[in-house]
Amino acid sequence: MSFYMPTKIYSGSDCVIKNASVFKNFGKNAMIVTGKTSAKVCGALDDVVKALNENNISYSIFDKVLNNPTVENCYEGGKFAKEIKADFIIAIGGGSPLDAAKAISMYKTNDISPMQIFDGEQKNKPIPVIGVATTAGTGSEVTQYSVLTVESEETKRSFSTPDTFMKIAFLDAKYTESLPMSITIDTAVDALSHAFESILNKRSNIFSEVYAKESLKLTGKSLSSLVKRNLTYKDRENLLFASAYVGIAIAQTGTTVVHSMGYPLTYYKGLTHGNANGVLLSSFIKGCDNVNHKLVSELLGYLGLNSINEFDKMLNTLLPDRKIITEDEAKLFSEKTIKAKNVSSCPWDITQEDEYKIFLKLVK
Amino acid sequence: MSFYMPTKIYSGSDCVIKNASVFKNFGKNAMIVTGKTSAKVCGALDDVVKALNENNISYSIFDKVLNNPTVENCYEGGKFAKEIKADFIIAIGGGSPLDAAKAISMYKTNDISPMQIFDGEQKNKPIPVIGVATTAGTGSEVTQYSVLTVESEETKRSFSTPDTFMKIAFLDAKYTESLPMSITIDTAVDALSHAFESILNKRSNIFSEVYAKESLKLTGKSLSSLVKRNLTYKDRENLLFASAYVGIAIAQTGTTVVHSMGYPLTYYKGLTHGNANGVLLSSFIKGCDNVNHKLVSELLGYLGLNSINEFDKMLNTLLPDRKIITEDEAKLFSEKTIKAKNVSSCPWDITQEDEYKIFLKLVK
Repeated sequence: MSFYMPTKIYSGSDCVIKNASVFKNFGKNAMIVTGKTSAKVCGALDDVVKALNENNISYSIFDKVLNNPTVENCYEGGKFAKEIKADFIIAIGGGSPLDAAKAISMYKTNDISPMQIFDGEQKNKPIPVIGVATTAGTGSEVTQYSVLTVESEETKRSFSTPDTFMKIAFLDAKYTESLPMSITIDTAVDALSHAFESILNKRSNIFSEVYAKESLKLTGKSLSSLVKRNLTYKDRENLLFASAYVGIAIAQTGTTVVHSMGYPLTYYKGLTHGNANGVLLSSFIKGCDNVNHKLVSELLGYLGLNSINEFDKMLNTLLPDRKIITEDEAKLFSEKTIKAKNVSSCPWDITQEDEYKIFLKLVK
Repeated sequence: MSFYMPTKIYSGSDCVIKNASVFKNFGKNAMIVTGKTSAKVCGALDDVVKALNENNISYSIFDKVLNNPTVENCYEGGKFAKEIKADFIIAIGGGSPLDAAKAISMYKTNDISPMQIFDGEQKNKPIPVIGVATTAGTGSEVTQYSVLTVESEETKRSFSTPDTFMKIAFLDAKYTESLPMSITIDTAVDALSHAFESILNKRSNIFSEVYAKESLKLTGKSLSSLVKRNLTYKDRENLLFASAYVGIAIAQTGTTVVHSMGYPLTYYKGLTHGNANGVLLSSFIKGCDNVNHKLVSELLGYLGLNSINEFDKMLNTLLPDRKIITEDEAKLFSEKTIKAKNVSSCPWDITQEDEYKIFLKLVK
């Protein structure tokens, strides 16, 4: 049993501006890593630029991070980081820019091929990364994980080292207020999935459980607002903290089969990451219920729900389109995903047949 | 609002032996810092030595740490660390060796006078410290604080920097099994005090609160065993985790007036640290009850208690001797302790008169 989460978290309204002076601990030349638009729309980029200017830190912006970034996309970012001689990175965004920044920080200091990023510990430590979360779901700002799309393998893979934790994570719910409702929902479902996958994970321990359960309780406070698609600032803050809390938990336990089974739904069918997890989550919880009914009931209780059926109905309201694959795809996806590393942390000994049956529920 | 706790925790039975290989990440030459006997009696020293031998790491033992170590005591340890050219420190013990090790690690790399340790950030980073907790109370293994006795000021003072967090903390409840019952009780009361002082602290935040409340819930599970002075291994583990949990919380919030008011009771009257906190704790909670009755009731509920009166009776069973000072001392102690830094985090604006009245309850 172990616990490790070395990221310093600053949270609350205007936390970037209020803690602007911390940026100067990381150098004179920053690289901002983000996607095309959201960092600008939500105001996070403006706040970061203001904070950097206040501290006379120069910066260059790399805003080419793709949704579900590929290794090549991140490698390009790494080249950019080398060119501008970045001292550190500020990543602004949801999971894609945050995960990409971790890879870019590693490419910056190591002369490796794109795919060598998956080889484990590298020779040189990455440059420091600071994260500004603009969605409430990924938890990437407080984990060591970077999940990248590998085109040659037609799936996603993750890498992590103890050095890929961010140095600082900023959590300001105002950045999530401008999110489209669909992304708000998808990311909230991702965090929900993290909570169930962490607590029901074979690697769950007393330290991870505290935060994962608290995450569910916080989500429970704002679940009806989410279902009504009508969120206050307080709801936004609850969901953002819920996401970070369970991020701390999955940093200890990892995720399990919902995540690995979700990857082909994203890669082949274009589902967002949260949506892909969401359409699989009830089936996973049903499987867990067979091995630990008491715990599953406790967890559903934190959300104010009395049964897996109620949970499934709630998810169906949030993500109504589930019939999205063919029978052949169900077969292919189960063949592919039963080989995933995190299958071993599933609370029951899941078989390819089990996975196939779960995928079958998504057949048109 | 912020959160930072970069220590990696390994916990569970035989965690030192099972994770022996982690020691080799810190160098070839270790200094073991401990007190005279307890590390030997409880088996922790044997386990550490075995782990070091397995990894061909040489070591020297500094077992001169006093109870409530003085700055001079730690400075002597610093000289020893320089002489043996220690790469890193392994601290084994309760709060005294753990806090001393933090100071020693700082003296090792900085040519400063004993008292300059209180000057804040030092020029050079300390050598890494690994902690093996042998009591369940201090939480020092997961905090940045080092509390040292300053003879010239007739009290204790603390220093901390972000670099004084330990690199690794080992939590194995078997080391606490050989503790005398009085130390088991005193240290458990220290952890209880940490929980109330952290949650009711002005600096309490959502991240610290999770762990502090969970700490109380864990203590609650074993409180009746403690009162009966009859603890199982599971009780020991509950108390050890409760102590670490709330350590993570006070690393964020600090303590408040119970701790500062307790220092003269230790310095002048020889009370153990936990006992000193314990005789003040009910009065503090009564003060807090006036400003937040609902929260105080919630916290007592986690311990299975219905009122402050019940809490006070419980403490009186654990620590019966409270009439220990004179009226003059009550006056002197309140004059001294109202100047403490952490008075500002008391949930109400505590005055010297308030402190005097609290000390008066301890008059013979």
